[in-house]
Amino acid sequence: MTTTTDIPNIPNEKKPAPKSIVLTSHPSKTDSRKPLPIDWGAADPGLRGPIVATLQNPGGKNAVGTHSGAYSLYRALAIASGQLKAEHKPDLTNTAPAERIGPFPQWADPEKIVSMDPWGHMTSEVFARQIAAGWDIRPTVAVTKAHINMPELHQAVQAGRLVPDGDILAANGDVKVTKVAVEPVWWLPGVARRFKISETELRRGLFEQTGGMFPELVTRPDLKVFLPPIGGMTVYLFGDVSRLGKKETRIACRVHDECNGSDVFGSDICTCRPYLAHGIEVCIEEAQKGGVGVIVYNRKEGRALGEVTKFLVYNARKRQEAGDRAETYFQRTECVAGVQDMRFQELMPDILHWLGIARIDRLVSMSNMKYEPIVSSGIAVVERVPIPDALIPADARVEMDAKKAAGYFTEKVPDAEELKQAKGRGLTE
Amino acid sequence: MTTTTDIPNIPNEKKPAPKSIVLTSHPSKTDSRKPLPIDWGAADPGLRGPIVATLQNPGGKNAVGTHSGAYSLYRALAIASGQLKAEHKPDLTNTAPAERIGPFPQWADPEKIVSMDPWGHMTSEVFARQIAAGWDIRPTVAVTKAHINMPELHQAVQAGRLVPDGDILAANGDVKVTKVAVEPVWWLPGVARRFKISETELRRGLFEQTGGMFPELVTRPDLKVFLPPIGGMTVYLFGDVSRLGKKETRIACRVHDECNGSDVFGSDICTCRPYLAHGIEVCIEEAQKGGVGVIVYNRKEGRALGEVTKFLVYNARKRQEAGDRAETYFQRTECVAGVQDMRFQELMPDILHWLGIARIDRLVSMSNMKYEPIVSSGIAVVERVPIPDALIPADARVEMDAKKAAGYFTEKVPDAEELKQAKGRGLTE
Repeated sequence: MTTTTDIPNIPNEKKPAPKSIVLTSHPSKTDSRKPLPIDWGAADPGLRGPIVATLQNPGGKNAVGTHSGAYSLYRALAIASGQLKAEHKPDLTNTAPAERIGPFPQWADPEKIVSMDPWGHMTSEVFARQIAAGWDIRPTVAVTKAHINMPELHQAVQAGRLVPDGDILAANGDVKVTKVAVEPVWWLPGVARRFKISETELRRGLFEQTGGMFPELVTRPDLKVFLPPIGGMTVYLFGDVSRLGKKETRIACRVHDECNGSDVFGSDICTCRPYLAHGIEVCIEEAQKGGVGVIVYNRKEGRALGEVTKFLVYNARKRQEAGDRAETYFQRTECVAGVQDMRFQELMPDILHWLGIARIDRLVSMSNMKYEPIVSSGIAVVERVPIPDALIPADARVEMDAKKAAGYFTEKVPDAEELKQAKGRGLTE
Repeated sequence: MTTTTDIPNIPNEKKPAPKSIVLTSHPSKTDSRKPLPIDWGAADPGLRGPIVATLQNPGGKNAVGTHSGAYSLYRALAIASGQLKAEHKPDLTNTAPAERIGPFPQWADPEKIVSMDPWGHMTSEVFARQIAAGWDIRPTVAVTKAHINMPELHQAVQAGRLVPDGDILAANGDVKVTKVAVEPVWWLPGVARRFKISETELRRGLFEQTGGMFPELVTRPDLKVFLPPIGGMTVYLFGDVSRLGKKETRIACRVHDECNGSDVFGSDICTCRPYLAHGIEVCIEEAQKGGVGVIVYNRKEGRALGEVTKFLVYNARKRQEAGDRAETYFQRTECVAGVQDMRFQELMPDILHWLGIARIDRLVSMSNMKYEPIVSSGIAVVERVPIPDALIPADARVEMDAKKAAGYFTEKVPDAEELKQAKGRGLTE
């Protein structure tokens, strides 16, 4: 990568920190310490420019918020309690991506990716000159390799659905994967356009409706990038990663939203872990045939309402008159939360574009809320793979019927009579 | 519950929202709209007072931040994009706790619990008068019941380690649990004391080192409660919950910090899911004998450093000269993150006190970082249960040796020769 822009030296930040507290910053017309410019969507990373969001560069920060999402609070606590020095800069020796991913043409379209930094894993490489000039530029994406092993895959091998190949899937059930962790990086003009609102409305809403988080959202309209303190996502890739972005490569994919109760503990009220395990099975199959499998795991617990709200809704569903039934499934969430869902799949396809995906051959999801944004964003979907009926726990029938009636991909939509039946267990059973 | 304090009517908030943006609030000496007082640790909830953190009560908010932790950002997005009305108040019909928990004497000690609201699940009951007077008071804790089913428990039954009893553990592997979701609620003076710093240092650190989140942390010293936008925790209880808080009740407990890669996907670089599954097995055993099993699941991914940092560290460990070995295990994290760990177990025992626990008969953890704060907080630990050797994946030996050498509970501490051996797989294997 070459860059033709001049890189200003790091502003002189070595003077002692001011004793007074600065409540919020404002764009400066006179201060010579200007943030590095960001040209979102520029094909050349030198022109795109780095995201500078650490607190080491107060004058040169070009983003609202800071790194590590919600974990920035823990770092603040570490510094406040004297366990971490505020001026610590990470030693990134040996941390570079374990597999090369991209660049892909989608990275050069400012509307295709608005909620992550496509260059986030390559910062040490593509912003080497800025780093050498003293700028503190940190990765927002990390790529590593791992072996995973899930009991459900053993069962798939025993049942003959999966056959170990000694590489992607070993005889002991070990599966080789490439894993990618992604921190949210929002380009505010693009996020606003996704939600069909003005950037000003977005900024004011984010500030006021969080109880006053980050006044810079409204005082710094010149800062176009925001690192929100929310959970990010993890991508698990199966097969030869270098085949991503090639037209002939078949892609199997499940986009999965976190559900701790099922994903970890195997709660039987929903189909989350069974469907995830099925998605991984399909990904392994596709990888064994020379394609790439993609599992996207989004930290959006309880439809991004959080687990307290989720459990309140469970109680309301189980206790309502006439029992837990599909016809009132969404209503109970709406009574408590005001909406049926807060996951905002509008931003979800970004990660698929980042992976260079233009076509998904097998989408392991029945959700119309996921399918529609994927297709609208320009990615073709060839086949939709429903969850095998045998994997649906008895108590999860209510959810499945309700979702099918609401537009979930299915061959048989349940009728009104069906939806009225109480199928869920009572709260005390 | 009775209360002797007068409850002021809700301040008149019905005037239209101001057009101008209020960047931060300041304590008012003249405004009659005073927040309800909070007397943290008061035994009578009427005297303790409710946490008012919704944006429906701008004049009467008595906490910094708002509900739902990091998910408050999603709610803000829902409102900004017109999908949720800002004035929505939850309809909490039928959402009350599925099991009664507390009150316990520990709730009346302002130093025992500082990072959650002990009355958070009982708001509709104990703050009924305030709610009737128009105050928008929301639960920060939710209690429900569920059935869980994990493949590891089937294996335990097959191996004869667990015997189904038809109630707690059914023949099909279903386990009955009571689940509790908890949103963080920090009482700032108490949190500061836990970290042995002043409240002012804590507030300033949290504000400045997050990149300027919530100026009210510094402008509103009168607001002593903060709802940080971080992940909370989930508690899984096994056995008869009404036995909590009784001296004769035996308690088995594992405090588990989230590790998505292992907990969900079964990555073999650590012992997280195997140890969690073993903890659940011990909890079921204890519940079958008339005790109570307690699993606390904390949302503190990657030692609260987040997953991007975690994966960067994995790469550095696997690529270092002489391979991945125990003697440099902690060093690699410290190079990248500046600390070895950011989980702050100082706050962790709060949930145990909330459950009325004064003695843990079987603590399913070898971690000294968990053991010491539990014991220092006044909870006796009778037995520490190590992970059975057969459950440690081969690639996780590095971690296990490093932790044993650093003070992990074990019968045999590895020597320097042992710690030098490269035991972890290389990055490309």
